Amino acid sequence: MLSFDEHNLTDEVVNRFAGCPDDRLKQVIQALVRHAHAFVKEVELTEQEWFAAIQFLTRTGQMCDDKRQEFILLSDVLGISMLVDAINHRMPDGATESTVLGPFYLGEHRVTPFGGDIAGDEPGERLFVEGTVSSPGGAPIAGATVDIWHSDDDGFYDAQKGLEEPSLRARFITDEKGRFGFRSIVPSSYPIPHDGPVGELLEATKRHPMRPAHIHFKIAAPGHETLVTHLFIPGDPWLESDAVFGVKESLIATLTTRQGGSYPDGSAAPDTWTHLAHDFGLKPTA
Amino acid sequence: MLSFDEHNLTDEVVNRFAGCPDDRLKQVIQALVRHAHAFVKEVELTEQEWFAAIQFLTRTGQMCDDKRQEFILLSDVLGISMLVDAINHRMPDGATESTVLGPFYLGEHRVTPFGGDIAGDEPGERLFVEGTVSSPGGAPIAGATVDIWHSDDDGFYDAQKGLEEPSLRARFITDEKGRFGFRSIVPSSYPIPHDGPVGELLEATKRHPMRPAHIHFKIAAPGHETLVTHLFIPGDPWLESDAVFGVKESLIATLTTRQGGSYPDGSAAPDTWTHLAHDFGLKPTA
Ligand SMILES: [Cu+2]
Ligand SMILES: [Fe+3]
Ligand SMILES: [Fe+3]
Repeated sequence: MLSFDEHNLTDEVVNRFAGCPDDRLKQVIQALVRHAHAFVKEVELTEQEWFAAIQFLTRTGQMCDDKRQEFILLSDVLGISMLVDAINHRMPDGATESTVLGPFYLGEHRVTPFGGDIAGDEPGERLFVEGTVSSPGGAPIAGATVDIWHSDDDGFYDAQKGLEEPSLRARFITDEKGRFGFRSIVPSSYPIPHDGPVGELLEATKRHPMRPAHIHFKIAAPGHETLVTHLFIPGDPWLESDAVFGVKESLIATLTTRQGGSYPDGSAAPDTWTHLAHDFGLKPTA
Repeated sequence: MLSFDEHNLTDEVVNRFAGCPDDRLKQVIQALVRHAHAFVKEVELTEQEWFAAIQFLTRTGQMCDDKRQEFILLSDVLGISMLVDAINHRMPDGATESTVLGPFYLGEHRVTPFGGDIAGDEPGERLFVEGTVSSPGGAPIAGATVDIWHSDDDGFYDAQKGLEEPSLRARFITDEKGRFGFRSIVPSSYPIPHDGPVGELLEATKRHPMRPAHIHFKIAAPGHETLVTHLFIPGDPWLESDAVFGVKESLIATLTTRQGGSYPDGSAAPDTWTHLAHDFGLKPTA
């Protein structure tokens, strides 16, 4: 059949992919065509708008390099990253909920002993984090790797400051009771990179680029799905409107202000410090 | 509200755009979010597929430069370009149907007199094209600009061959009877550029990159919408499966083989030549 119009074109394009030898690719691309066409028809996209979209996507691709992934950022601010996360990590009771990895994970971290100080002389509120890693049944997991990373008191990651040594970033190995713990500072909220096309989109739609303060966790253990998540600092003004939709109620930590005494690892604590205790559950692999 | 899951996240993202000060942008972006989320949910996109999509879009953007627009190509092979064309050019009776502009239009062409030869010594079947431009009522339009461009006998455009002078590309101005005409050669079918991400997509889905042979037209006249269209060469094996969905029944030209005699402009014709006559109707602006 020839002569396609707005009424029969979608079916023709879907049919054109009928010979795709990979069934999953065929399913995905045919669904993509149907939803993309439905979008264009619903809003009756003008030629000027279509061309603006082409230019936006082009600039987004050209903003990417080995330090910047603007398409992931676009996926994040449209809630697509968190939707993919939600669909792929339906957690059983007792397992910790997941959230986005974010752009500041740099791969495997330096192993640091229990109670290690990962802040050095970074200014900020002193913090002791401790927790356990277990199976949803409650059995502690020994030898789990716990990678953590977070922003400094000004909202910057070490990677953004061009430091030689890792800072506010380390790996801990759980002991026979599934425990880990470290000394650091309380992180601050920060804006996602907003000097590119995604920043333009946020600006044009009057959305802010802020993420509430959080500590990233990536926890792995044999026989369990790797958990990628955050713990959020309670009371943060951006918790209700995280630019990337990453907040879940269960991921807001409990912080307790303590006066002096000793840290949980027995070392001397300063006059005032903050204590964060949180237990994590890993989903067993099928 | 906090804690978004796959069931309530879409509404939250849509609401986050509620404050967009531009009503049209708000409508477009909210519809985009709904259709993008519906796509992800329908196919239950995996994290690996999501990341493959991020990488595909990034490579597509990075393939673009001042000579190559890979996102337009992607829009073309997904039928989106033709859908936007169909929605934006609903033609009244008597007006010629439109189709895609394509990547080989280089802007305003050199004005050439009636009957001018735009092929020079290019090999190929000799062709005389003549036509009229009129309003749908039938009144001829004098002084309309008719930009034409087409591929050579091997399927290449002048721009692809790095020629100094334009070839198979010119502008004609209609006379008081709305007429234009020129000498050239019969163009050949050709593949769209398929050495990039879009070519990978076609290959993975076992779609060919071919476009049936055609002559591009861009016709403009005061008081009328500019017409961007093709005339297709009848009998082409790719007419039924144009890689960019550009074919419309009404745009398939009638070609007549003639023996010797003279061309329509009175000059001597070769032993065998092809005659293409087609009349164009322009839609008046509202
Ligand atoms: Cu849809
Ligand atoms: Fe972060
Ligand atoms: Fe062409």
